[in-house]
Amino acid sequence: MNQTIETLLNHRSIRKFKDEKLTDEQLNTIIEAAQQASTSSYMMAYSIIGVTDEEKKSQLAEISGQDYVKNNGHLLVFCADLYRHTLYATPSEYEQMLSNLENSEHFLVSAIDAALASQNAAIAAEAMGLGICYIGSLRNQLDKVDEILHLPKHVLPLFGMVIGVPDHEPDLKPRLPKQAVYFENSYNRDHKEELAAFDKEIASYYEARQTNNRSDSWTDQMRRRFSKPMRMDVTGIVKRKGFNKQ
Amino acid sequence: MNQTIETLLNHRSIRKFKDEKLTDEQLNTIIEAAQQASTSSYMMAYSIIGVTDEEKKSQLAEISGQDYVKNNGHLLVFCADLYRHTLYATPSEYEQMLSNLENSEHFLVSAIDAALASQNAAIAAEAMGLGICYIGSLRNQLDKVDEILHLPKHVLPLFGMVIGVPDHEPDLKPRLPKQAVYFENSYNRDHKEELAAFDKEIASYYEARQTNNRSDSWTDQMRRRFSKPMRMDVTGIVKRKGFNKQ
Repeated sequence: MNQTIETLLNHRSIRKFKDEKLTDEQLNTIIEAAQQASTSSYMMAYSIIGVTDEEKKSQLAEISGQDYVKNNGHLLVFCADLYRHTLYATPSEYEQMLSNLENSEHFLVSAIDAALASQNAAIAAEAMGLGICYIGSLRNQLDKVDEILHLPKHVLPLFGMVIGVPDHEPDLKPRLPKQAVYFENSYNRDHKEELAAFDKEIASYYEARQTNNRSDSWTDQMRRRFSKPMRMDVTGIVKRKGFNKQ
Repeated sequence: MNQTIETLLNHRSIRKFKDEKLTDEQLNTIIEAAQQASTSSYMMAYSIIGVTDEEKKSQLAEISGQDYVKNNGHLLVFCADLYRHTLYATPSEYEQMLSNLENSEHFLVSAIDAALASQNAAIAAEAMGLGICYIGSLRNQLDKVDEILHLPKHVLPLFGMVIGVPDHEPDLKPRLPKQAVYFENSYNRDHKEELAAFDKEIASYYEARQTNNRSDSWTDQMRRRFSKPMRMDVTGIVKRKGFNKQ
């Protein structure tokens, strides 16, 4: 099979790494690949912060609650970035630009641009035999992450990514049946059977897997997830950083 | 060089396709690759609508203003999707879930999940020799796209992707210098020199390129982009669809 397709289909999140830092060459390739991703209207509305300072990594690991945020080959933080777009604006232009820049459209643009770049980074890393894990839990305390990385207004941290030489080999995690995710021409609201079938599949997976095995299903997980307020402060922080305001 | 890295670095958007539909096998591989992308807390909070109906494709091409939205090997629309997560909730659970589900955190989660899946789809397509172009211009009239695809509440169209056999070979488009995008440990606010250097590079690119050559720079493009209100209605539509409400 095509090597690239194989890499894509073989993805699993890696949460335990060997004690080896990425080489400069590996990191350069990862960043170069990230930068070549598609970008909305050439805005390239994202930045990447590589965190190498051990004290900062410890602080971010504490926010995330995951030790692998500290122990890895490299840590990247992907940010939505609309800061550089106004650097050459005159003061009066700047005022005019703000209401446009700060709307939901450009919040979406910058979040999507950052995500496309990050996924290229992930694939590049995996293609070189490295493993990765996305770190959404940086959003547990977005204001602190913002402070640690000294981000200006119009730069918003979205998520991290740890990269390194894998030190475990987790099972491939099942995905929803295609019939529940891909539709032709119109959305099919009648998902329940597909979800029930998936619940059975995922229950077997959780029972059989090597570590952290348990009795659970997907729909139960989602009910637990959404049953209590989570990261309700993200809304306010996003607006304070100058995104998603109108 | 590693084939996968080569594919990533060789990306250019394709806007003219041969008159060949994707095979079922190609499409299946693309969707399977999309589904294997990382997803926040296993939420898989996205859907993909494949549009094959010629009338619908014409309508979407009109919204986008691009003929290649109609003329391609396949058209995908990527949606943020928090619909299926409540399908098994009881009515009282559902009410409790809403304020959590509809916050900015889960708007971000679903947009990022959709983008990660889409970038895997893009790479899979390119790895098979196909070309792709993201279609952000569906957001010109998001309410119409929503109607055409019959999306329920908590499913929001974000962008399209056209895929097909390339019928042109555009130049590789330069990216911002790494120094303006990648920072170590702290954000570097002093971008102006890097942007000036990039403006020179991109001016030469625009002058020299085969089609649509012109005199322009990146900072000028961005000043034009943000000088006038754009897609200000996205905010309201997003909220009406049950996203980003609190």
